[in-house]
Amino acid sequence: MQRYELPIKKPIFANLQAMAVVPNGHDTAAGHYNERQMKISERITGMASSPIRKLTPLADKAKAKGIRIYHLNIGQPDIKTPAKGLESLRHIDRTVLEYSPSQGFLSLRRKISEYYAGYGMDYSPEDITVTTGASEAVLFAFLTCMDPGDELITTEPTYANYLAFADVAGVKVKTLKTHIENDFALPEVEHFEELITDRTKAILICNPNNPSGTLYGRKEMKMLADIVHRHGLYLFSDEVYREFVYDGQEYFSAGHFPEIAENTVLIDSFSKRYSECGIRVGALITKNKAITQGVLKLCQARLSPPLLGQIVAEASCGEDSAYLENVIGEYDKRRKVLIRELSAIPGVKVSTPHGAFYAMAALPVDDAEKFCSWCLSDFSYEGESVMMAPANGFYITPGLGANQVRMAYVLKSEDLQRAAFLLGKALEQYPGRIL
Amino acid sequence: MQRYELPIKKPIFANLQAMAVVPNGHDTAAGHYNERQMKISERITGMASSPIRKLTPLADKAKAKGIRIYHLNIGQPDIKTPAKGLESLRHIDRTVLEYSPSQGFLSLRRKISEYYAGYGMDYSPEDITVTTGASEAVLFAFLTCMDPGDELITTEPTYANYLAFADVAGVKVKTLKTHIENDFALPEVEHFEELITDRTKAILICNPNNPSGTLYGRKEMKMLADIVHRHGLYLFSDEVYREFVYDGQEYFSAGHFPEIAENTVLIDSFSKRYSECGIRVGALITKNKAITQGVLKLCQARLSPPLLGQIVAEASCGEDSAYLENVIGEYDKRRKVLIRELSAIPGVKVSTPHGAFYAMAALPVDDAEKFCSWCLSDFSYEGESVMMAPANGFYITPGLGANQVRMAYVLKSEDLQRAAFLLGKALEQYPGRIL
Repeated sequence: MQRYELPIKKPIFANLQAMAVVPNGHDTAAGHYNERQMKISERITGMASSPIRKLTPLADKAKAKGIRIYHLNIGQPDIKTPAKGLESLRHIDRTVLEYSPSQGFLSLRRKISEYYAGYGMDYSPEDITVTTGASEAVLFAFLTCMDPGDELITTEPTYANYLAFADVAGVKVKTLKTHIENDFALPEVEHFEELITDRTKAILICNPNNPSGTLYGRKEMKMLADIVHRHGLYLFSDEVYREFVYDGQEYFSAGHFPEIAENTVLIDSFSKRYSECGIRVGALITKNKAITQGVLKLCQARLSPPLLGQIVAEASCGEDSAYLENVIGEYDKRRKVLIRELSAIPGVKVSTPHGAFYAMAALPVDDAEKFCSWCLSDFSYEGESVMMAPANGFYITPGLGANQVRMAYVLKSEDLQRAAFLLGKALEQYPGRIL
Repeated sequence: MQRYELPIKKPIFANLQAMAVVPNGHDTAAGHYNERQMKISERITGMASSPIRKLTPLADKAKAKGIRIYHLNIGQPDIKTPAKGLESLRHIDRTVLEYSPSQGFLSLRRKISEYYAGYGMDYSPEDITVTTGASEAVLFAFLTCMDPGDELITTEPTYANYLAFADVAGVKVKTLKTHIENDFALPEVEHFEELITDRTKAILICNPNNPSGTLYGRKEMKMLADIVHRHGLYLFSDEVYREFVYDGQEYFSAGHFPEIAENTVLIDSFSKRYSECGIRVGALITKNKAITQGVLKLCQARLSPPLLGQIVAEASCGEDSAYLENVIGEYDKRRKVLIRELSAIPGVKVSTPHGAFYAMAALPVDDAEKFCSWCLSDFSYEGESVMMAPANGFYITPGLGANQVRMAYVLKSEDLQRAAFLLGKALEQYPGRIL
């Protein structure tokens, strides 16, 4: 390989005694240091990369070659943000973009309280902490309720980022397997109870579920309420897809069960409801005062949630209810399109989601991660390809979900149709196809 | 006490079997659970509350009584955000407020790279990760570079929120005392080396320093560079007040020392530079690829930094250099006003800060936290009072700084003068005054 002379930038303080950069570890001219020094943490080394975003470098390369990529990998809707939200920015009359209160603006917490009243839940503004997205709410719930070595029970496949936050909190995640064959139904009570030990502090549920799209109804939520009540566990209920429920199903929140008011921590977000993922505004909601006070310490440490996002979120709450009805109708249409198109591809098995905007599919391939990578690096059809999230990253048990992918039906119907078409073409050409 | 009949909200799912809320721990009708269950974490129980914000409830009460409070407790400038930053919101042409890339917009990272070039530092956009404020940059640096049980060395008094993030990371903080008598000068090399053990992974420095306002010059920074180089330690250098340097002093960044390029992690923020603390946009900057890649895992887990804040930050970079010159001149003026006014109060000893916008003062009181609380709850003069941050929260060693407060000179000169006047009046009346 040819070598090029790179222009060398001269440090401006050239008279400082410059020494060669020291490689990691061992004896150096400068002294001795041990194996662990200048090594990043085991916590991070052992942390899995996000299955939703880890193939992004391959997608970027494909785009650089001029290939159009249909993104089914990430729950980034193309639905418009409420006009009132956007208008609030255009008419901003502040001259200083200052810190907001650590727990969020009271005016926004009042709006959230009103929103919950509409769902028949009585949460006062004092029960509500505004967070930097639901992500921060999950992290703060984990940090506040669990110590290193404590155990958390959830289902798998699970939202992969929970695992990263559990790693940060030093918490052990124990999982119950759910299966594509029965649309990832919640396991029975005895399976949960088998996992409970002296170190178990909480159950985490995502309803409607990301990544499976499964909706847990009244029976399932009552079962969970009974378990956490009986065993004195916290119930973290991530309900950011609360609105997105189809087929005439009714929604039951963990907040609808008064007997577990002290156990329950709701995780919420404006991201999906109002198609404003970028504003980074979520909420942690609980009647448990000890948790709220503990969370406040973390909130104060990070000073405040995003000011501008809160302004948009509050304005979005004033949007006409027709906005959400339209959005839900649109997702329902897309869901049907995706399921129909995927079901028509030979060898593809797709689950039937009743909530959120994700579907899991089993593909006739040797390894879904390899296939998803191949779609970006080695495949295109008429200058286009498709990006999906390999499902192995949503499972904890090694080997599970190896032939599955998660797809977000957040693109408009024509694009979903085209993406499914491209997937079919890719499967025809993929060398690792299993017949 | 009289009892009132409160209107009872009927749960909408009244036919669910409602049970009484279970008190913490022990046997219940529902079963048995252990002492640790339904208890928040020891990590949070043991975490100190922010000294900057913990008296906020008292301030809120005073305000509710109609008392005007001068806030010297928090570094929230009244300086206007750059017009270009605000204009970027008024002209926003997006219809969907979507996620941004996990490591931040490339266009913003390019601006940051250009900004560093102006300081003679060669950081490419790939070396720069956009974070949700400098707070997140600190947390991510800790989590990525240190495991639980590892040790971090810093000076005290220290920025209190570092301690909360160290608690989250499970890291032990070891401190070197600095003293108001010599304007909190950096201790000599042997004091640092005495603290280094096999578990020491990093030194953390804040320059110019919050809370002391001390500026570490070339000699001090070179000493730190030598130490981290010799011992194979990371150097976390929080430089969010980089611009705010007075008395003709020159600024030396940890990034100016090429021999520690792999050791150095710079923490940066737009908050103070452009008086836009609310946008929550900071940055973690390092040439160490392993750290950048590790940090990316955490960035992907929390999806993305604030979209709107990044738009404002990028637009603010286009502001005329006169903006910052004016701001620095204004702070310098305020600094002189505050020092002059405080020095004139009998019994008050104030340090001379050469950077940032904080000053530490020793007060003639029994206990500065009691005094600060008293100023809010029991004192007012002509309907006004003053809020300061008790300095004990910035010290780790119990007992240190008990008579000290941190003051931010972020208010305009007339207000600072008035605040100092009110402090004098409060000291005259305070029952715990030490003569």
